[in-house]
Amino acid sequence: MTHRITFLPQHRTASTPDGASILSAANWAGIPIETICGGRGTCGQCKVRMREGAGPAAETDRRFLDAAQLEDGWRLACCATVHADCVVEAPSGSSEPPVALPGSGRSVALDPNVCKVHLELAQPSLADPRSYLTRVLDALRAAGYEPRAVPNVSRALPAVLRHGAFDITAVICGDEWIAVEAGDTTDRNYGLALDLGTTTVVGTLVNLKTGVIEAVESLLNAQATYGADVIARIGYATLHEGGLAALQSRIAGTVNQLVEAAGAKCGVPRENIYEAVAVGNATMLHLLLGVDPAPIGVSPFVPAFQQALTLPAADAGLRLHPEARLSTLPLVGAYVGADVVAGLLATDGVRRADGKLRLYLDVGTNTEIVLGRDDRYLATAAPAGPAFEGAQIRCGMRAASGAIEGLAIDGNVWLRIVGGLPRPVGICGSGLVDAVAELLRCGLLEPSGRFVRPDAVPGRLPAALADRLILQDGIPGFLLSAPEDGIILTQADVRALQLAKAAIASGTQVLMKRLGVRTEDLDEVLLAGSFGSYLNPASARAIGLVPDVPLERITAVGNAAGEGAKIALLSRAEREAARQMPQHVEPVELSGHPQFNSVFTDALALGRA
Amino acid sequence: MTHRITFLPQHRTASTPDGASILSAANWAGIPIETICGGRGTCGQCKVRMREGAGPAAETDRRFLDAAQLEDGWRLACCATVHADCVVEAPSGSSEPPVALPGSGRSVALDPNVCKVHLELAQPSLADPRSYLTRVLDALRAAGYEPRAVPNVSRALPAVLRHGAFDITAVICGDEWIAVEAGDTTDRNYGLALDLGTTTVVGTLVNLKTGVIEAVESLLNAQATYGADVIARIGYATLHEGGLAALQSRIAGTVNQLVEAAGAKCGVPRENIYEAVAVGNATMLHLLLGVDPAPIGVSPFVPAFQQALTLPAADAGLRLHPEARLSTLPLVGAYVGADVVAGLLATDGVRRADGKLRLYLDVGTNTEIVLGRDDRYLATAAPAGPAFEGAQIRCGMRAASGAIEGLAIDGNVWLRIVGGLPRPVGICGSGLVDAVAELLRCGLLEPSGRFVRPDAVPGRLPAALADRLILQDGIPGFLLSAPEDGIILTQADVRALQLAKAAIASGTQVLMKRLGVRTEDLDEVLLAGSFGSYLNPASARAIGLVPDVPLERITAVGNAAGEGAKIALLSRAEREAARQMPQHVEPVELSGHPQFNSVFTDALALGRA
Repeated sequence: MTHRITFLPQHRTASTPDGASILSAANWAGIPIETICGGRGTCGQCKVRMREGAGPAAETDRRFLDAAQLEDGWRLACCATVHADCVVEAPSGSSEPPVALPGSGRSVALDPNVCKVHLELAQPSLADPRSYLTRVLDALRAAGYEPRAVPNVSRALPAVLRHGAFDITAVICGDEWIAVEAGDTTDRNYGLALDLGTTTVVGTLVNLKTGVIEAVESLLNAQATYGADVIARIGYATLHEGGLAALQSRIAGTVNQLVEAAGAKCGVPRENIYEAVAVGNATMLHLLLGVDPAPIGVSPFVPAFQQALTLPAADAGLRLHPEARLSTLPLVGAYVGADVVAGLLATDGVRRADGKLRLYLDVGTNTEIVLGRDDRYLATAAPAGPAFEGAQIRCGMRAASGAIEGLAIDGNVWLRIVGGLPRPVGICGSGLVDAVAELLRCGLLEPSGRFVRPDAVPGRLPAALADRLILQDGIPGFLLSAPEDGIILTQADVRALQLAKAAIASGTQVLMKRLGVRTEDLDEVLLAGSFGSYLNPASARAIGLVPDVPLERITAVGNAAGEGAKIALLSRAEREAARQMPQHVEPVELSGHPQFNSVFTDALALGRA
Repeated sequence: MTHRITFLPQHRTASTPDGASILSAANWAGIPIETICGGRGTCGQCKVRMREGAGPAAETDRRFLDAAQLEDGWRLACCATVHADCVVEAPSGSSEPPVALPGSGRSVALDPNVCKVHLELAQPSLADPRSYLTRVLDALRAAGYEPRAVPNVSRALPAVLRHGAFDITAVICGDEWIAVEAGDTTDRNYGLALDLGTTTVVGTLVNLKTGVIEAVESLLNAQATYGADVIARIGYATLHEGGLAALQSRIAGTVNQLVEAAGAKCGVPRENIYEAVAVGNATMLHLLLGVDPAPIGVSPFVPAFQQALTLPAADAGLRLHPEARLSTLPLVGAYVGADVVAGLLATDGVRRADGKLRLYLDVGTNTEIVLGRDDRYLATAAPAGPAFEGAQIRCGMRAASGAIEGLAIDGNVWLRIVGGLPRPVGICGSGLVDAVAELLRCGLLEPSGRFVRPDAVPGRLPAALADRLILQDGIPGFLLSAPEDGIILTQADVRALQLAKAAIASGTQVLMKRLGVRTEDLDEVLLAGSFGSYLNPASARAIGLVPDVPLERITAVGNAAGEGAKIALLSRAEREAARQMPQHVEPVELSGHPQFNSVFTDALALGRA
């Protein structure tokens, strides 16, 4: 059962499950409501006025609101729960976030999960013999915090209080008090956003006081020596004695290298990094946490865990502050991971109950597809294979220096080469899509994916172009550059791209059928991921990789997963929204879908769909 | 602000702070109310009917109670809070504890903090792709538990679910899910009660399923090589590089030896011990947790922590189940420790709002004194010195084989010797108190503590007795046994006992003055601790060690601290009562008390007081 909740003065509405708190509904709707305590009912900051649908006042309401206010509909947003459609007025002070940060075109109120609280404590006396721990907890409670103290805090207190003469800073991460430092250290508060790709790991060091990004570093995932894709990694973890531990230690090592490199660049010591937020596919998160990913690899394909977890970062071998926390975002399913949740958070589509139908594609070896509107989304993963990464393509390569990344045919063949090199050394995924789209457009490729025979080239084409169509061992191919460069697009390459395209297109179609929508209903197509961002939308549409919608509805949204990790690091409200995301996204397993095979066969054909 | 709460059908009343839950008030009053979830509002078991003083129904009430029931005053005891005097009816089903256990003459409902929950899970399928972690959490929720999972649970799940074919047992400790085991292991559930004395450590291995005690072991505290008393230990921890770590490792080693010995005796492997509850003085608990005890040793004498803490037992070096928890009971102050809280829990006096005035004495080198009635108690510690342990007494010894533990004078001198030996080898504390009391009674000692001169022995005394009064180097003494045994009570020994007795008696008197009560008001005097239990109440009263009350009001209650640790291990409700205990007990620091010196001087005199 869900209810409609409308926030004033924004007049923004959201649908919310029965029994949810107003605060979590506001987080979900992206309405900023200030809290100090993060919704634990201890700070009294999150007062809202329920214009319609108010329930009875709770105990906690009475602590912070008087009878007249209660009568007038005022409640604490963290305690009031939704049991009917309601209208909620959030006071104007709440609608101005203290600091804003751009993230895929959106701004986020700075409200990190890690808080540093500076406290000047009264010294103990015979008249006030409270223990060290009690006097800090009392001071924290007065400041609106009621955290659980980790054991090391009690161990650190005697020396820190002595050294700091009872002038100290407590470090709170979520609902845990993780550290205590002498003096006022509130200026030194950093977090780490981690985007754990199967191939590449990106770490962003963020200043949690200012929201400023201090350093971004990326490294190849050191697990790569144990296999290129998730299936290979799962196999290694499952079949080799100590395989899981080896993979865990590799990813921890990669992250530690990133932290060292980032720290060297901006001068932030790892002791001042108190939290890491990690996103990635299900397998990467399992391996980071040292959890056996075997169940992901076999039918019925379930992860060992799917919820957002928080654990000591040291427990995963990460060298940050010794008590730093590592938090993951949730998974939707075994093949729709936290990277997708982060991407949906960053692009902010799922939460806008604006009736628009959205398609989100994170194009890659495993392409995640999300389709829906308002609070119902479907998600699946299409095994596109490594063609987009340049693998199993004769002259394929990654988008590195010398790769053809863009191509246009106009009497001649025009190349855009990574690094601006004069001659290409290979072709990467976006170039491949352009090449096939352009060859299709000018009639050198048939919609079936077959090259036309050299003797059947349309007469209107210039000879310079027609001459590039060659036969090798009787099989046609197309010279992408001067013959001496040897950069050829082969018939097999086109077949590989067709299979990849068909996987994505048929995944999209299955979701559209399941949701009962048609291509013309699509309001937005979002292309995410490093590959998706470089893709030419017109070419993607021309070969049928994305549905046939007007080009202005197709948007490249960049590395949305990484952006989502940063957003979750900077805002508790956004992180809470990410936690709730899987409730709104239903995973669909393609291999179990009865229509998939016929849809797939149809989708092999090239052309607008 | 406190309110009066009356429980029906027992008609037992308690006073409770404003805003406390009915459940915690019931725990405090010793009224058994069944819960599965331990008061987290998730199981709906703790329904009670508020006959008077009901507040508005909470959200959680509505989940488990219908409108008619709410109207009729039914509420969940864990959610309903007290804001006025009230009358609460607990359903009769709740008043029958499943298993009872004797503890200092009281019975305790078996409701341990560690629960084993056997679950037969549905296997994953394409139609039910919930993660392993989710399907266990869902099953636990259905059973009334909503714990936080520790990271190692996610790590263990894939192998345990595979191995157990989805038939598993989850181990819940407090609000944490700490372990998962294949199959039904609910029969194997053990806990460890630890009484950490400065000299002796006692470990009791308890079967948490049946409440049966499987083994009791005691060992000398291996810290003893670093000092005999807490002041010496604090000095060692503070002044020696690595001293704290050495002391921590010694006490952990002692506990691990106890566990090994107990396990060997009853066949319980340490992997099946999921929780340890530790009590002891403040210094012992600081050292066990590796927290610098320095602030305990210097004015104004405050502990680093005083609250009940829970941490991974492995974090303190204890080798139990790898994820076992270690919980401490709270301290009242730097010198009124968790041993006193445990003792008050075991003797159940503080919670009975029966108007009786009680004095609790745990007699030892540091004697804890608690005095009060209803919900106001005062506590202090008197530095009695080591006389009761036989130290600094010429023929003093511990209560080991050959020690005079009891003595009566009746024309002759009658001895009770530990182990039934024919001849004594020394005298222990209880013998010392008897000796001084008897010599005082028959006129060989003056109330000032001086032996009468041999030439001034009352003529009515038999010669056999008078002849035992001897002079050594001109100083009088008393032959406790045949001259060839050489067991003499010296004038210095009597002085040592006088100082110890004066410390305790003056501490008691300060508390009585502070509370405004007189000796004749005392309803109960409880003598706790291994020494207190062996003490002859008549002798203790005769020399003025305890106030001059009728003998039937003086009770030896045994090792109440150790009993309290066991009770806290076996019952969450009792542990919650222990957590609340310090709110009802106000520590009084004798050294800061203006009247102490004059009271102490007066208390040096021997005789009923």
